[in-house]
Amino acid sequence: MKKLAVVALGGNALLEAGQKGTIDDQEDNAYKTADRLTVLLKRDYNMVITHGNGPQVGNIMLANAAGNKLYNVPEMPLDICVAYSQGFIGYIIEQQLRNVLKANDMDRDIISIITQVLVNKDDPAFKKPAKPIGPYYTREESERFAEEGGAKFAKDPKGRGFRKVVASPKPLVISNTKSIEKIAREGHIVIAVGGGGIPAFYVKENKLQGIDAVIDKDLASSLLALKINADKFFILTDVPKVCLNFNTPQEKTIDRMTIAEAQRYLDEGQFAEGSMAPKIRAAINFVENSGKDCIITKTTLLGVDDGGTRVVMV
Amino acid sequence: MKKLAVVALGGNALLEAGQKGTIDDQEDNAYKTADRLTVLLKRDYNMVITHGNGPQVGNIMLANAAGNKLYNVPEMPLDICVAYSQGFIGYIIEQQLRNVLKANDMDRDIISIITQVLVNKDDPAFKKPAKPIGPYYTREESERFAEEGGAKFAKDPKGRGFRKVVASPKPLVISNTKSIEKIAREGHIVIAVGGGGIPAFYVKENKLQGIDAVIDKDLASSLLALKINADKFFILTDVPKVCLNFNTPQEKTIDRMTIAEAQRYLDEGQFAEGSMAPKIRAAINFVENSGKDCIITKTTLLGVDDGGTRVVMV
Repeated sequence: MKKLAVVALGGNALLEAGQKGTIDDQEDNAYKTADRLTVLLKRDYNMVITHGNGPQVGNIMLANAAGNKLYNVPEMPLDICVAYSQGFIGYIIEQQLRNVLKANDMDRDIISIITQVLVNKDDPAFKKPAKPIGPYYTREESERFAEEGGAKFAKDPKGRGFRKVVASPKPLVISNTKSIEKIAREGHIVIAVGGGGIPAFYVKENKLQGIDAVIDKDLASSLLALKINADKFFILTDVPKVCLNFNTPQEKTIDRMTIAEAQRYLDEGQFAEGSMAPKIRAAINFVENSGKDCIITKTTLLGVDDGGTRVVMV
Repeated sequence: MKKLAVVALGGNALLEAGQKGTIDDQEDNAYKTADRLTVLLKRDYNMVITHGNGPQVGNIMLANAAGNKLYNVPEMPLDICVAYSQGFIGYIIEQQLRNVLKANDMDRDIISIITQVLVNKDDPAFKKPAKPIGPYYTREESERFAEEGGAKFAKDPKGRGFRKVVASPKPLVISNTKSIEKIAREGHIVIAVGGGGIPAFYVKENKLQGIDAVIDKDLASSLLALKINADKFFILTDVPKVCLNFNTPQEKTIDRMTIAEAQRYLDEGQFAEGSMAPKIRAAINFVENSGKDCIITKTTLLGVDDGGTRVVMV
């Protein structure tokens, strides 16, 4: 049986630092990322691609708010904005990967799936929403919105204003998991769990209902990798390797670490929240429960010997 | 082998006439539509669902324009707006159908696929874009946009202003067709070809590129139904049956018509463009090339004996 890889693409797969997010930029970046993925395809891996949506969903929420303000378009809740971003990013990655495959005379079908992820309404994250998303508002605006809609807002640490904060609950069940595994093992490339998945939970009478939350895409990707029995889990980001004492004179790259070491560094606060820390947690989750390795690296080093940091069981 | 049905949902599946398009309205409507689909599932049909996106993509384009105006968010081209709408509508239909299945103790997985559709860049439709989409502008605005961006605009016949007009090229190849058939025949419900699909064509070096166009969803659905060898093709709309002399004292409903009759009525101008005419063309296309029947009816009459108009070969 062919090996199955899950590759989690970072935000920079479509949008590089400093770019505003024009469609041309995003297509170019997606092509470059897709081009690098052929390294694994040439080694005959089956593949599931997951991706973030931070900058894209931010822009979608801005447009959403503006459409309501200017043209009275009904404002869509966050789960719908995440769904928008899955359609968008799934399409762009699929299209550019099709172009790359054609340029390389490779014949694989690519299937992009809209993914819901079940969360628990009693997840403690809902008690203290902490993940900032969407547009910046003035204090007055944020207070008015909080009063009108019940949303929570927090002051931006860099002084750019006030932003909505939402919960980032734990992903529990990813929809279509069996089908994703089956389709991928048949040799097709699957794109799924975009932006960590569209968060939904059960309300009364066991009805599914979307919710204003975002799911960490690395954690959702590691859950998917476990559930589909992936052989390898790659987390792509914008640094070549995980570092200790990052951005200090004592900075030191890590080639290999056990999950016990990773947990210790995490406990020591070596990794920034909202950046490397969730990737380390996702890696630990996958390695601990599968016994297989996880590699964290930058896109251009995917598949390079000794490229990236290898997180291992022991 | 179980029979396979393609059900094309009209715009009113999510948004009824007069509704503004709040998420609550759209969820409620999606639930009602999904509930009706169980009629076919109880008869043990396999099923592929396709859907329109008119009102939704209109709202998305408005928000898109407003986001650019108010917050300088990069404006997304039409193919991306269609991709947004596929994510959104696919998600909502899937979620409500999951709720309906659970309420009926039915166990089927539902897979929503982001669908690209290949069109020909030399399609004559690109020479005279005629399909109005998106926001209404003043004459001055529309002239400025036309000059800046090369888009075409046309005066709204009802005097509401000027709207962008885009081409509606013929769908040629629907991506993932084989996988859609396979997944559906395995018993899963597939949602695909939303809004007629995201239009793309080949530019230099055989690279796929999205394009500012919209594909007629009924025509794309009939192509899909043909390619996946569907046994039945249902086109759901907001009237119980197709009518001759619609909205006149001579109005007459049609229970059954051959494709020759359908073509004659079409040539006589019996069916309105942008409304019943494309459905009739889609029905003819399916019946002519498959020899099987197509039924045009309203959602609430799906599966009812003698409900709807049956379009047949002879």
